[in-house]
Amino acid sequence: MDYYSKHINDLIEEFSRLPGIGSKSAGRLAFHIINMPEEQVKHLTDTIINAKKNVRYCKCCYTLTDDELCPICKSTKRDHETIMVVENTRDLAAYEKTGKFNGVYHVLHGAISPMLGIGPNDIKLKELMERLRGDVKEVIISTNSSLEGETTAVYISKLIKPLGIKVTRIASGVPVGGDLEYTDPVTLLKALEGRQEL
Amino acid sequence: MDYYSKHINDLIEEFSRLPGIGSKSAGRLAFHIINMPEEQVKHLTDTIINAKKNVRYCKCCYTLTDDELCPICKSTKRDHETIMVVENTRDLAAYEKTGKFNGVYHVLHGAISPMLGIGPNDIKLKELMERLRGDVKEVIISTNSSLEGETTAVYISKLIKPLGIKVTRIASGVPVGGDLEYTDPVTLLKALEGRQEL
Repeated sequence: MDYYSKHINDLIEEFSRLPGIGSKSAGRLAFHIINMPEEQVKHLTDTIINAKKNVRYCKCCYTLTDDELCPICKSTKRDHETIMVVENTRDLAAYEKTGKFNGVYHVLHGAISPMLGIGPNDIKLKELMERLRGDVKEVIISTNSSLEGETTAVYISKLIKPLGIKVTRIASGVPVGGDLEYTDPVTLLKALEGRQEL
Repeated sequence: MDYYSKHINDLIEEFSRLPGIGSKSAGRLAFHIINMPEEQVKHLTDTIINAKKNVRYCKCCYTLTDDELCPICKSTKRDHETIMVVENTRDLAAYEKTGKFNGVYHVLHGAISPMLGIGPNDIKLKELMERLRGDVKEVIISTNSSLEGETTAVYISKLIKPLGIKVTRIASGVPVGGDLEYTDPVTLLKALEGRQEL
């Protein structure tokens, strides 16, 4: 790879490390950056730095947000007695896009995976249990329909049931093995409607 | 798109503006950045800034390089009497990867395109003509085999021929390993026209 200058090679290498970007895309991106006006490049790098610096966890639901509390947890229009548990912020966004769920969320930031060595203490589960001390009527478990997601769902339901809170699991309208993030809104709604008590 | 925090949305928007990155890839990249360790993010942005700041044109062949002269123009092992004319630095790299071309290059940074309003003065053509004052035996025109590339090739050859310098054009035809069945008619005709005696 010494066909290009060192700086271009460095840039291509950096881009190739990002997810979903192969060496050809990385090359195209690098040359695009080199040809971009200087102020646009500055804007891009500033945006990256600002996002990294300012984005933090909502202290209630642990989604990624700019403030102490995310807009959903802050909202008085949402039903705070219904908590939907998701694996990550993108899954939250997928449900928000349907526009039909009026409860609040809890973002686990992962799922229990013995294979990857991720246990119940490595996800935001303790934080969820603390929230359940307040007035909560239903916990909807919307983890992915993968092995890890199902394991997490069963684990959580066993923890919550003794508290007398209704626990539901979204229906398997979501294709098995599919990512919630990339599921179309109609399928997501079907899954929400078909939820069953665990 | 107010499911995410403002900073994440800004980041997704910035990434979507890059070539070949759709909204889903942009989202994945943005969340990847948010979850990256701070020093890795700093390294990424520093690399972008450094590349933009330090990469410049080689003052001889106009490829992108770190120094006044690129390694190829500097090299005494290369045949400086054979110049290959390419549209951009990536095309130069494509030929360098073959490892079989021992001449030097001239990078036009574009091709003549009346439709896009790109004329002969908008590409590094004057600079090529100045180089031909020295000892040059052959100019190989390796512009793309598109309408713009062909137009540029014809234009350049008409400029150079009166100088008594040999001008050649790379062959176009069926790619090696390509299926004749799926090759477009224009390419097939080009291949037929360019046939050589065995």
